[in-house]
Amino acid sequence: MREVFHQSLEDVQGRLVELAELVTIAIEKATGAFGTSDVALAEQVIESDAEIDEKAHDLDELVIEILARQQPVARDLRIVVMALRVSASLERMGDIAEHIAQLTRLRFPERAVPRGLKSTFDKMGTLDVAAAKKLSELLRTEDLTLVDDIRDIDAETDDLHVSVFEKVLSDSWAGEPSQTVDATLASRYHERFVDHAVSVAKKVQYLAEGGEFYPTGETTNV
Amino acid sequence: MREVFHQSLEDVQGRLVELAELVTIAIEKATGAFGTSDVALAEQVIESDAEIDEKAHDLDELVIEILARQQPVARDLRIVVMALRVSASLERMGDIAEHIAQLTRLRFPERAVPRGLKSTFDKMGTLDVAAAKKLSELLRTEDLTLVDDIRDIDAETDDLHVSVFEKVLSDSWAGEPSQTVDATLASRYHERFVDHAVSVAKKVQYLAEGGEFYPTGETTNV
Repeated sequence: MREVFHQSLEDVQGRLVELAELVTIAIEKATGAFGTSDVALAEQVIESDAEIDEKAHDLDELVIEILARQQPVARDLRIVVMALRVSASLERMGDIAEHIAQLTRLRFPERAVPRGLKSTFDKMGTLDVAAAKKLSELLRTEDLTLVDDIRDIDAETDDLHVSVFEKVLSDSWAGEPSQTVDATLASRYHERFVDHAVSVAKKVQYLAEGGEFYPTGETTNV
Repeated sequence: MREVFHQSLEDVQGRLVELAELVTIAIEKATGAFGTSDVALAEQVIESDAEIDEKAHDLDELVIEILARQQPVARDLRIVVMALRVSASLERMGDIAEHIAQLTRLRFPERAVPRGLKSTFDKMGTLDVAAAKKLSELLRTEDLTLVDDIRDIDAETDDLHVSVFEKVLSDSWAGEPSQTVDATLASRYHERFVDHAVSVAKKVQYLAEGGEFYPTGETTNV
């Protein structure tokens, strides 16, 4: 029974990694499409979000089956419950990639990236992709040094997010209201994406360090 | 054992209702503070979010204890797993109330509500509070007619959200960029709040109607 259970846990872990990898592809395409106004690439992201939702759903079903048949307790139970939480965060990260793609499509053939903010959003996109890759690796290897890497990426992303508002609220800003709206939403999405990565990383770390429960109450900034 | 289990389930339900009621108070204060630039009221919301986070955390601990000790199966298991999902959504709704309060504090002593959008945001605030109240009642009574009420509120909120963008992007809009930013973020928060209420309502409905699993893949608009 223990062996069956540990095979199941490996299956859960494998599916979490797979989900994180799909999210990585989605955010890579979404931020790329946003930066280059590539509406065909944006469409791909929008279409493929259903696959992420379905895989998250299948993972949840697997977890429920494990709970019902193998009735894990103690630490094993916490791992399984954590998987439910992580799949919800990964699904939400996929939704955010889709939102970035939708902004791109909404403005096409105009550019969705507001003038003067191209390099900032390119950097934010690169950071989002780096966070998603580190997260996939963390879920695969449980190498906790990756948690700090993800936190560092989050700090950099937060600074860029603040810099977007500084730019938009500065006297030199000559953007149309539509560009102010786009900058606000796009910056928020890019920043939120990494928040979710941090939230997952903290859960993995907490369990890996023998914590009794995963942390809750993630803080987010406006 | 069955009786113990059903007492536990009642306890879970009672705590979900309590959490939904705290969220109702938070959104009522947050939208009120936003509309009247009442920074003291906004501070109350920001301070009390920790209580919502803590209660959600306690509820999750209770669910894990139930899973470990009583090892529910079939439908009972699904109810317990749903409670984990619902507590996460309620916690997130509390976070959104906090974000609205933070916007109010950020702009004080200026008004956070952009000129020309006061009545729109008043309506959105009223709809947010109505959705939270209906959701508390749904969790308490399982009266499924409330699900449609919440969906109706969501449709109205979406329309107002679109109207905010129409206003901000119209030729008549004379707001500063800071007001455009505030309108964008505030509208998004008000609208997202009801999205979460719909997501919870759908889960309650699905289980009440004997569904095998709660629906995933909530759709959100930009």
